[in-house]
Amino acid sequence: MIRAGIVGGTGYTGIELLRVLVLHPEVEVAVVTSRADARIRVDALYPSLRGMIDVVFSAPDVAALSDCDVVFFATPNGAAMLMTKALLEKKVKVIDLSADFRLKDTKEWEKWYGMEHVCPDLLAEAVYGLPEVNREAIKSARLVANPGCYPTSVQLGFLPLLEKSLVDVSHLIADVKSGVSGAGRKAELAMLMSETGESFKAYAASGHRHLPEIAQGLKSAAGESVNLTFVPHLLPMIRGIHATLYAQVSHSKVSLEEIQALYEQRYAHEPFVDVLPSGAHPDTRNVKGSNRCQIALHQPQGGQTIVILSVIDNLVKGAAGQAVQNMNLMLGFPEDQGLKTLALYP
Amino acid sequence: MIRAGIVGGTGYTGIELLRVLVLHPEVEVAVVTSRADARIRVDALYPSLRGMIDVVFSAPDVAALSDCDVVFFATPNGAAMLMTKALLEKKVKVIDLSADFRLKDTKEWEKWYGMEHVCPDLLAEAVYGLPEVNREAIKSARLVANPGCYPTSVQLGFLPLLEKSLVDVSHLIADVKSGVSGAGRKAELAMLMSETGESFKAYAASGHRHLPEIAQGLKSAAGESVNLTFVPHLLPMIRGIHATLYAQVSHSKVSLEEIQALYEQRYAHEPFVDVLPSGAHPDTRNVKGSNRCQIALHQPQGGQTIVILSVIDNLVKGAAGQAVQNMNLMLGFPEDQGLKTLALYP
Amino acid sequence: MIRAGIVGGTGYTGIELLRVLVLHPEVEVAVVTSRADARIRVDALYPSLRGMIDVVFSAPDVAALSDCDVVFFATPNGAAMLMTKALLEKKVKVIDLSADFRLKDTKEWEKWYGMEHVCPDLLAEAVYGLPEVNREAIKSARLVANPGCYPTSVQLGFLPLLEKSLVDVSHLIADVKSGVSGAGRKAELAMLMSETGESFKAYAASGHRHLPEIAQGLKSAAGESVNLTFVPHLLPMIRGIHATLYAQVSHSKVSLEEIQALYEQRYAHEPFVDVLPSGAHPDTRNVKGSNRCQIALHQPQGGQTIVILSVIDNLVKGAAGQAVQNMNLMLGFPEDQGLKTLALYP
Amino acid sequence: MIRAGIVGGTGYTGIELLRVLVLHPEVEVAVVTSRADARIRVDALYPSLRGMIDVVFSAPDVAALSDCDVVFFATPNGAAMLMTKALLEKKVKVIDLSADFRLKDTKEWEKWYGMEHVCPDLLAEAVYGLPEVNREAIKSARLVANPGCYPTSVQLGFLPLLEKSLVDVSHLIADVKSGVSGAGRKAELAMLMSETGESFKAYAASGHRHLPEIAQGLKSAAGESVNLTFVPHLLPMIRGIHATLYAQVSHSKVSLEEIQALYEQRYAHEPFVDVLPSGAHPDTRNVKGSNRCQIALHQPQGGQTIVILSVIDNLVKGAAGQAVQNMNLMLGFPEDQGLKTLALYP
Repeated sequence: MIRAGIVGGTGYTGIELLRVLVLHPEVEVAVVTSRADARIRVDALYPSLRGMIDVVFSAPDVAALSDCDVVFFATPNGAAMLMTKALLEKKVKVIDLSADFRLKDTKEWEKWYGMEHVCPDLLAEAVYGLPEVNREAIKSARLVANPGCYPTSVQLGFLPLLEKSLVDVSHLIADVKSGVSGAGRKAELAMLMSETGESFKAYAASGHRHLPEIAQGLKSAAGESVNLTFVPHLLPMIRGIHATLYAQVSHSKVSLEEIQALYEQRYAHEPFVDVLPSGAHPDTRNVKGSNRCQIALHQPQGGQTIVILSVIDNLVKGAAGQAVQNMNLMLGFPEDQGLKTLALYP
Repeated sequence: MIRAGIVGGTGYTGIELLRVLVLHPEVEVAVVTSRADARIRVDALYPSLRGMIDVVFSAPDVAALSDCDVVFFATPNGAAMLMTKALLEKKVKVIDLSADFRLKDTKEWEKWYGMEHVCPDLLAEAVYGLPEVNREAIKSARLVANPGCYPTSVQLGFLPLLEKSLVDVSHLIADVKSGVSGAGRKAELAMLMSETGESFKAYAASGHRHLPEIAQGLKSAAGESVNLTFVPHLLPMIRGIHATLYAQVSHSKVSLEEIQALYEQRYAHEPFVDVLPSGAHPDTRNVKGSNRCQIALHQPQGGQTIVILSVIDNLVKGAAGQAVQNMNLMLGFPEDQGLKTLALYP
Repeated sequence: MIRAGIVGGTGYTGIELLRVLVLHPEVEVAVVTSRADARIRVDALYPSLRGMIDVVFSAPDVAALSDCDVVFFATPNGAAMLMTKALLEKKVKVIDLSADFRLKDTKEWEKWYGMEHVCPDLLAEAVYGLPEVNREAIKSARLVANPGCYPTSVQLGFLPLLEKSLVDVSHLIADVKSGVSGAGRKAELAMLMSETGESFKAYAASGHRHLPEIAQGLKSAAGESVNLTFVPHLLPMIRGIHATLYAQVSHSKVSLEEIQALYEQRYAHEPFVDVLPSGAHPDTRNVKGSNRCQIALHQPQGGQTIVILSVIDNLVKGAAGQAVQNMNLMLGFPEDQGLKTLALYP
Repeated sequence: MIRAGIVGGTGYTGIELLRVLVLHPEVEVAVVTSRADARIRVDALYPSLRGMIDVVFSAPDVAALSDCDVVFFATPNGAAMLMTKALLEKKVKVIDLSADFRLKDTKEWEKWYGMEHVCPDLLAEAVYGLPEVNREAIKSARLVANPGCYPTSVQLGFLPLLEKSLVDVSHLIADVKSGVSGAGRKAELAMLMSETGESFKAYAASGHRHLPEIAQGLKSAAGESVNLTFVPHLLPMIRGIHATLYAQVSHSKVSLEEIQALYEQRYAHEPFVDVLPSGAHPDTRNVKGSNRCQIALHQPQGGQTIVILSVIDNLVKGAAGQAVQNMNLMLGFPEDQGLKTLALYP
């Protein structure tokens, strides 16, 4: 049994980490921090956990966290970078679910996140935790930057095409829709049910923080810079992301059958990426609560435009589930341990 | 007072026509047909109408409908074309909310709708009822083909750019999301709340019947054939369509300010198209129950891609409201009569 | 045209008042106050109102409001009582949608609302604005206390039985369910869509502020004190209240037919109370956006327990619509003017 | 590994059984029947199960099912009774999730279910599968009648009070609200999202089939006949039941503290019944996807009326989870095996 700590245990990614970890056979959740709820029992705040965990929220404290084997940061951006160096020095492995270590370029990070980065050296060291790309590096990493939810769905959808240079990278479009839990557990007027229920809208159409993260990953896959238009939208539901991706094939002779075969081959051994049969339309409900990404491919009217449909649960493969997948890799457990849950349908 | 008839009064567009027409000061709803519910009071099936209408559903019958000044078809595709000729001969004006008269090309219509068209001559005569394009023709029409919901939102979003030839018409993308009422009032497994609630998916990504209708309208605006990729999606909510449209500007020197000014000018005198200020994100809730289309424009990262966001209520501007707008034009009433309702927020 | 002012125009009852009043033929909305949003255009905050109102939010100010003929308070509890006296002295009629003037007993008010009442004399003068009970008094009132949403649905459901002393008043039960808009437009964690969507719970089961208001009204109807158990619940939807009421008939010989006839007779001339046919189950959707209360009656297994089902839209008959109904009565307009809208179905 | 069969695998209880059983370490799902979908792979219909099950739907057939150790009926009422006797003769244990064996009184069953019972002798033998009442009998049963969803939530809520004769059994009220998945996976107009979303209503207020089942259980607990008013309601959400129960204490001296202690003691060793601390309000989301029932107790205004709040997931503790709990008991597995999943929050 290894000891795990969660910093920021009261947000939706924190509670989702708890949901997965309390049933993980190799993990004891030893520390869960929350400044605001310190000294309250975790299961008093989250009655779904009653009987599963005896831990009391504590204020975040490096000394207490240092007794853990692995620490997850489920904190707002800017918090993880303040404690990570100290934890790494204590030989604690760190998995950051916030954005603090996702970008390699410090200036880019500071521009999009509006603050100074306090440990740019760790930006270089941090491994971007998308196992489908960086599995071997993750296994030996001390510090993993867990990908954002939008970036996970978009990258898994585009990667095979970009790796094989089959599409025009100057005209990529990602029209992505997310459930409201992606906005986190914060008291904001805009996220009231009266404001988000029974309605739909785009937001941040002129520029969203996940854009540089996606672009960085796509560039790495393509071997060249890409031009991506990324428009996020807010769905009137709680969990799930659906990315609808558009790319123009470079050579008109590439058929949908070839692309289907390429995707099936690329993800054949991936435990959590599932390429659906040709003609399918993945539904976010079929991955709700599971760590799976389901992908389907279309070529409307047999034309030049390839449409990729990619769905995940933003809190699982888009956050806590992927973090546990990374933990399994870092600590030598089977990659899918604790993650074999099925989607809740209906 | 003119007399109006509704054929197919038990679907969602039928009941929405009733909601608008029973309060219209110039209209008496004289006939409402429903084969299945004949002899039942309309307000017994729709308790929201209690006290507003005394009509009893009747079986559809040309003789009874011939006493009307205008007849609306809110029927499944293929029904209106069977009765329209007889009604026109009786000097009844016809507004068809189904797809029977929307396409000019008979072969194209028969390919997408899978049946033979019984009156292709009327296809030529029918006026496509998008007032923002065909206002004058509608005023003198005997037969109006009321546009589909998706086509209304997409055409109003793209028109100004295409009319001015500002974008590359070979790479248009329409990523459109609709509430479930668009699927109509039919007992289908796929439309149960357990199947569509709290989930999101694309459908018909390889080809949807509204594609040729949109393409016909865009071609007419552009003066040349267009290449459109249209992917419809199903939202876990009841009313509302949000079209996210992507186009590449032909000349990089066109600025967002110029495009904003173009849209404001194009729609300056339109009673039901509202161009939002620069930077806005229209929300479907702000047009719910109203006949309005709200549009906003973006140019992410100042690049070549223009993003147009266009929202309507699929049952109002996308169906019954637009039909009444057309009726007002055909019968010489003020264009917005009976349509001055405000969106229901929240 | 009379001039109306709205104090607290940014909450859901405030915007709902605007939705009704901007289309009211006898009313000009002259002043809309909001401390936080002063100097912002009303339609900038509420895009559904674009083109319908030119007013800019102003800070609340007695002088400016004194030029109005009627002022609506759509404020948190405790605000209206601070300004009402001054407005009444300026001959302005006041309709308070908050709870400040709903209870006759000052001590009771102070106990449930946790503050001192600054003008207990006005408690005595204020007319409780349930037109179905106090129509004549409302017509001549200077100050109307607009009923709460729960109290409206429960009182209209119980009144006929209590007025005729047909049930045991020592065992009344009101199990009432409300959409989330009843909680208002406040940034509260508990009202996020992630917290309230796809879930259901009771709250305040041990005592809710609307209990004394309901009890006061029922006592007045019964002519004696009543014992009511009132349990409110939160529905995963935006608008609508459904009250399920249980009462024991005092004399076993009272039949459902007699009770049905009693309700039909009691509400025969009420423009906004609609008694459904025997055996019906009112659906909140059939009153969504309308000022109507729909009621149905049941006597399960022909036993001693009468079940009354009563539905309203909490923001219309439960707040803004009823307030305009009261305004119409106070100012001599037709009682249903501006309120003839139909429910939005589906 | 035991072999399990599921008859009627395409409904929501069928797919929920699959979700639980494919991860159960002691069970192989060997047969899944569906007349309509015979020869289709189970995971083609339910993409959430891809990679977890290789079974193909087959037509229901006693011979094939006879090779199973246990067969679950997740069929419409009236189907299980046709095959059960043959299976029992083949030494197959049967767990019926439909209503065929829930009532002891044949006449009562035939009255409420509108058909003749073909094996009334098995009605006598069948054990009612509420483990909190019949655990020992279930362990040795050949045939278990799995309780209905409403009856589970209502009985678990009332039982402790009735077993101790603390309340007046002639005035019990159960106001119960269910998510739409309780209506099953059937193409019905009334269950479309456009009909059930964003709205709320009671149904079958004059009499529902679960009434005699609840009354039978409550009578058994109380040792005398009870008089129960049961009003079911339909919630605009997918999963979850919330029972709000009202009872009058017989002796005014019983305090809430005593009742709280009674419930905690009664359910102290129950793995799936969780009595919340005094003052709590259980939320259906906290049991979504889990086999747990959470209960809280209130005594409004310290009066005579006790309010019990009881929540379950209708598809888990109200159907498939409870069925697996019964299977575990019948086959000697740990009672909670395969059922240790946590609720999905948010």
